[in-house]
Amino acid sequence: MTTVGILGGGQLARMLALAGAPLGLRFLVMDTSAEACAGQFAPLLVGDYRDESALAEFASRVDVATFDFENVPAESAQWLSARVPVFPNPRALGLAQDRLAEKTLFRELGIPVPAFADVGSRAALETALAAIGLPAILKTRRLGYDGKGQFRLKPGVGNGDSGFGEAEAAADAAWAALGPQADRVGLILEAFVPFERELSVVAVRGRDGSFRTWPLTENWHVDGVLSASLAPARVDPALAEAAIAHAGRLAEALDYVGVFALELFCRDGELLANELAPRVHNSGHWTIEGAETSQFENHLRAVLGRTSGATSMRGHACMLNWIGELPDSVSVLAEPGGHWHDYGKSTRAGRKVGHATVRADTPEALAGMLRRIGDALGRQAQVEPVIAALSR
Amino acid sequence: MTTVGILGGGQLARMLALAGAPLGLRFLVMDTSAEACAGQFAPLLVGDYRDESALAEFASRVDVATFDFENVPAESAQWLSARVPVFPNPRALGLAQDRLAEKTLFRELGIPVPAFADVGSRAALETALAAIGLPAILKTRRLGYDGKGQFRLKPGVGNGDSGFGEAEAAADAAWAALGPQADRVGLILEAFVPFERELSVVAVRGRDGSFRTWPLTENWHVDGVLSASLAPARVDPALAEAAIAHAGRLAEALDYVGVFALELFCRDGELLANELAPRVHNSGHWTIEGAETSQFENHLRAVLGRTSGATSMRGHACMLNWIGELPDSVSVLAEPGGHWHDYGKSTRAGRKVGHATVRADTPEALAGMLRRIGDALGRQAQVEPVIAALSR
Repeated sequence: MTTVGILGGGQLARMLALAGAPLGLRFLVMDTSAEACAGQFAPLLVGDYRDESALAEFASRVDVATFDFENVPAESAQWLSARVPVFPNPRALGLAQDRLAEKTLFRELGIPVPAFADVGSRAALETALAAIGLPAILKTRRLGYDGKGQFRLKPGVGNGDSGFGEAEAAADAAWAALGPQADRVGLILEAFVPFERELSVVAVRGRDGSFRTWPLTENWHVDGVLSASLAPARVDPALAEAAIAHAGRLAEALDYVGVFALELFCRDGELLANELAPRVHNSGHWTIEGAETSQFENHLRAVLGRTSGATSMRGHACMLNWIGELPDSVSVLAEPGGHWHDYGKSTRAGRKVGHATVRADTPEALAGMLRRIGDALGRQAQVEPVIAALSR
Repeated sequence: MTTVGILGGGQLARMLALAGAPLGLRFLVMDTSAEACAGQFAPLLVGDYRDESALAEFASRVDVATFDFENVPAESAQWLSARVPVFPNPRALGLAQDRLAEKTLFRELGIPVPAFADVGSRAALETALAAIGLPAILKTRRLGYDGKGQFRLKPGVGNGDSGFGEAEAAADAAWAALGPQADRVGLILEAFVPFERELSVVAVRGRDGSFRTWPLTENWHVDGVLSASLAPARVDPALAEAAIAHAGRLAEALDYVGVFALELFCRDGELLANELAPRVHNSGHWTIEGAETSQFENHLRAVLGRTSGATSMRGHACMLNWIGELPDSVSVLAEPGGHWHDYGKSTRAGRKVGHATVRADTPEALAGMLRRIGDALGRQAQVEPVIAALSR
């Protein structure tokens, strides 16, 4: 009997446990909250990730450990990895926690990234701005999550001024917002990319180095939070191949084991890497019903040193995220390819509380299902971009 | 928050809980054993189904109740149904527990059945044998499960005798084996059907009377226990239609709510009903990966009064049962369409401890996968009949 430990007990841990049950696995989930929704289907250990005694108990009860949450302190992951096998390895986790290290590695690997610069001080921000220009985004290097810890520097409006004065005003505002965090978590200035599309590669790499990806996925965000995903992304096959090659090089460089997502922007037919999510990913939720093997099952198989399952998909799938509260499930369940996922969480603004996956054999059929669901729920704005993509 | 209570905590309850989690459901499983495998993923209440205080606690903690086990005492189901909604209704459960009532209803509904007769005494057995002839099977009316409580009456061999003397010898042996149970659980004599194929209709009926079936499934048993299932069954579409129509009439007559299986024999191109299983069924396990909606999800949706999901399948699927102990999963997981189900049970002779489902787009591809798995596991005998059916 193998027990898999998961640090973090949210919906990702919950879906991992549900996918792992048929493999005969047992689970132990550790979370700081006794209400963590994975606890409804797996034993839950409540504790702080920095508490060594809690971590020691966790380590003593599991055969292998993985993550539902990428912001587990790197030191905790390191401490744990001295006691039980931890996948992905703490280095990959640490890298994904540091935007500067991450983008530096992307660049080293020949994965295109938007221009960026380390910002250690107010003066460094001036220098970075002079090199990168406006618009740009100042971000914390560490502990950013879903759009938090970011400040967008836009060209000034209204005074007719331009050039250095404008950049200085933007820098003042940005520094006021994030400067106080520069010493603790570091800052990075990134060129703002007016992208046309957001894409993600969801991939799995086994302990033996075998590498598979699910079809490229197109994503839409609202207020920095994923709103909808469509697979396969309606892009040029050469672009999809390039994205997959980037993900493969990254996985190799990090000796990554498990599932991860590489998020990319697409501008003028060119890819620019945005970030690495070192875990199963929201843009891969459609794989539960849409692929031969789900990202959750393959993550577990990789972590356990087993062969990954086929990542082929059938037809076309769209995932719609439910944020804050769940809508009525009736219109989704009325569709032949409509599948519902309620994470068992309480309602809270901004919280991911569930999703739906809608699958169909043709783009036209999928568009029809999405239109009916959007109309029934008054969520036309959520489905329209996906419907538009399906007609491309 | 809705809590579904399940009487019986085996693999069916376990797979119901796993299927219900994404619907936002909570579960409470009641079983006589603290080791019941559903307890690994759902809260488990240990108690005897005849213990009113245990049943009362169960009733107080659930919103609706259903079964993983059809031999829950009918009185317990009745008692419970006065306190919480119970689906399927106790009448359907009671009917399925009584072979005589079941076959009588089949006949009333115009569903063909093998010849049968009530056997209340040794004399009644003589009369029944005279009418039905040899070979025949004497069975207990109630509490038979997976081939237990049955005695086969064959024509005598070796003495060259035939006719009444032969039947009398068979009757003596049968009565010695099962006669003592006649008063307590009743007996029924059934003509032995030298069938060519065993089929099952797995169907779901909603609270609103809506009725759906998955494609007809062909089954192979070894020692009275299911060994393999293939869907869709390789039969004449008219035969499949007739089988589905029988299931529909039966569901209607019982005001059945939930998933059930109607097991049928096929002889000379004609169907003969064998029995009703008033629950999700082993021959429907392939629906987890092979159908748009699984039998487990649709059972829960029916029980909760929600719309059933599409029962369409993709390609061809074979389920292989693992009895007694689990084989190595490697050869199954190496196939692109291979899926593994370990029920988390300890090894025990005759026990259903897991299954595999293998799915492919064509019969040829499925046959190839089964051949490789059969060879790798030394289980050629288990896969050969399925491979033969796929070449029909």
